[in-house]
Amino acid sequence: MSFIITGASGYVGQELAAALLTSHPEATVTLTDVVLPIVPPSATQHSSRTKCIAADLTSPAVVDDLFTDSHRFDTVYLLHGIMSSGSEANFELGMRVNLDASRYILDRLRQVMPGVKVVFTSSLAVYGLAPPGFVIDETNFPAIPSSSYGSQKLIVETLLNDYSRRGFLDGRAVRLPTVTVRAGKPTQAASSFASDIIREPFNGRKAVLPVSQDTEMWICSPATVVENLIRAREIPKEKFGDSRAVNLPGLKVSIREMLEALEEIGGPEKRALVEERYDPDIDRIVQTWTPNFDPKRALEMGFVGDVSMRENIRQYVEGL
Amino acid sequence: MSFIITGASGYVGQELAAALLTSHPEATVTLTDVVLPIVPPSATQHSSRTKCIAADLTSPAVVDDLFTDSHRFDTVYLLHGIMSSGSEANFELGMRVNLDASRYILDRLRQVMPGVKVVFTSSLAVYGLAPPGFVIDETNFPAIPSSSYGSQKLIVETLLNDYSRRGFLDGRAVRLPTVTVRAGKPTQAASSFASDIIREPFNGRKAVLPVSQDTEMWICSPATVVENLIRAREIPKEKFGDSRAVNLPGLKVSIREMLEALEEIGGPEKRALVEERYDPDIDRIVQTWTPNFDPKRALEMGFVGDVSMRENIRQYVEGL
Repeated sequence: MSFIITGASGYVGQELAAALLTSHPEATVTLTDVVLPIVPPSATQHSSRTKCIAADLTSPAVVDDLFTDSHRFDTVYLLHGIMSSGSEANFELGMRVNLDASRYILDRLRQVMPGVKVVFTSSLAVYGLAPPGFVIDETNFPAIPSSSYGSQKLIVETLLNDYSRRGFLDGRAVRLPTVTVRAGKPTQAASSFASDIIREPFNGRKAVLPVSQDTEMWICSPATVVENLIRAREIPKEKFGDSRAVNLPGLKVSIREMLEALEEIGGPEKRALVEERYDPDIDRIVQTWTPNFDPKRALEMGFVGDVSMRENIRQYVEGL
Repeated sequence: MSFIITGASGYVGQELAAALLTSHPEATVTLTDVVLPIVPPSATQHSSRTKCIAADLTSPAVVDDLFTDSHRFDTVYLLHGIMSSGSEANFELGMRVNLDASRYILDRLRQVMPGVKVVFTSSLAVYGLAPPGFVIDETNFPAIPSSSYGSQKLIVETLLNDYSRRGFLDGRAVRLPTVTVRAGKPTQAASSFASDIIREPFNGRKAVLPVSQDTEMWICSPATVVENLIRAREIPKEKFGDSRAVNLPGLKVSIREMLEALEEIGGPEKRALVEERYDPDIDRIVQTWTPNFDPKRALEMGFVGDVSMRENIRQYVEGL
């Protein structure tokens, strides 16, 4: 077996590569990113089965080199992308990376490995603002993005759906909740605080909470996201029905509940490292993310539900 | 005032050009199409205010020539496109004309006439199959196209929405019902029969009905569609809210009701010219078009509702 992951230097890409290497002892995994990816530190014993390639996917020639008819991948994982805030700040860059590079890859794939399985990480940002309390599933609400990032994700989903319907490819688009608790460092993402307030205290550092404790979010643990990315390739295509896009399961949790879980597991001294410092700019963005999703379709298809906030934190602590 | 219409050789493009010339006595109208458009026969008295240009919009250089910063249009009407069956039969052509040419035009417009009003004819084909009896509006059902045509329309809508949100352009995407009764000739479109069974008898010719009389459709008269294309540019952008896409009003009508209206206005001898000859291929396509839409959003915004089937036929007969 042979997998390739684009955007493999990113947090989810690294976790997915490690999981694929561990769960598929015969598989080779190609990691590619604009920054030369490393073999995930937790999977260095498998480095003979990995191949790390620096590749700028906005270059058609680079894509042509990466995907050829002399080597067919079992699954192509498309995880590369300019994140939400970056796509909003730099429209042209977002279009080039999130849309044009993805479309060029899909077109290349249907030429050199027709019918290949493609797992695309989309986002719940394909949905704009929902009425308060309204619970979204895939059938009851239109995807009207309120960001360029969400628009670009929706467009690639639409292409992937049509390419799959026509038999060009076998696409699966999984819409990710906010992935929390992420290892690593705080980022410029508006959602960074959701990981920061857990991760930083466990590393002895202070964290800032820029929104109210009443704020509710739809999150998913990294382990569940990675498990579902693996399942996304294993679930028979027939189970997707009319749409190759699926809202991945997650957990609706308030910041208050997150802090309670932090204190329960880490004690009051860790909890004390979180400082509330309201930031209206971040709050305004976060308030547009609805926390209300019904993941019944994903669960019926065979995706797994998320763990509790406490279990999520325990998994993070175990990984330290 | 100065308007431009792409796809202006088509039936709706010609009707829109005539209506704009009539209703805006000072306006100039540029008609462009890959086939050199003519001045609409009903508007030849206004030919000094028209400009007809043959232009292949899949050529960036041609688009660059058509849209320059030395002449700002008040509204750009994007009506060009490869129709549903054509986009399904020739995927590459549909992508090039319906998606790539449209996107290139939007990008050119935001460079040379930022903020310009753009009216884009989308289609209710952005929706796939709906549950039997389910009544779609813009808020309660996802757009999951079941054709390449619908996918391409949805993608351009998504771009137009994001470009409008960012202030690049002032876009309005109107999703057209099946336009009936169309003048002209029978076409290869699966929906051709809906016009054929009225138009052909009134011209003394036989028409074939390939589906059951129980079949219900969501149609709109040409006059109402044209009126709403004019209103699409007049309605303040604020009324569109979070989405620049709107489901245009139409009329739910069964084939039986259409035939009854034909007989009432044209008499039994016209009705007798319609021959029922079941075509499973056409029926299968038509059954995927839901006839159930609630156009309340469009009506609240200021678009007009459609006329009755009888009035629709009378308008066709008056135009003969």
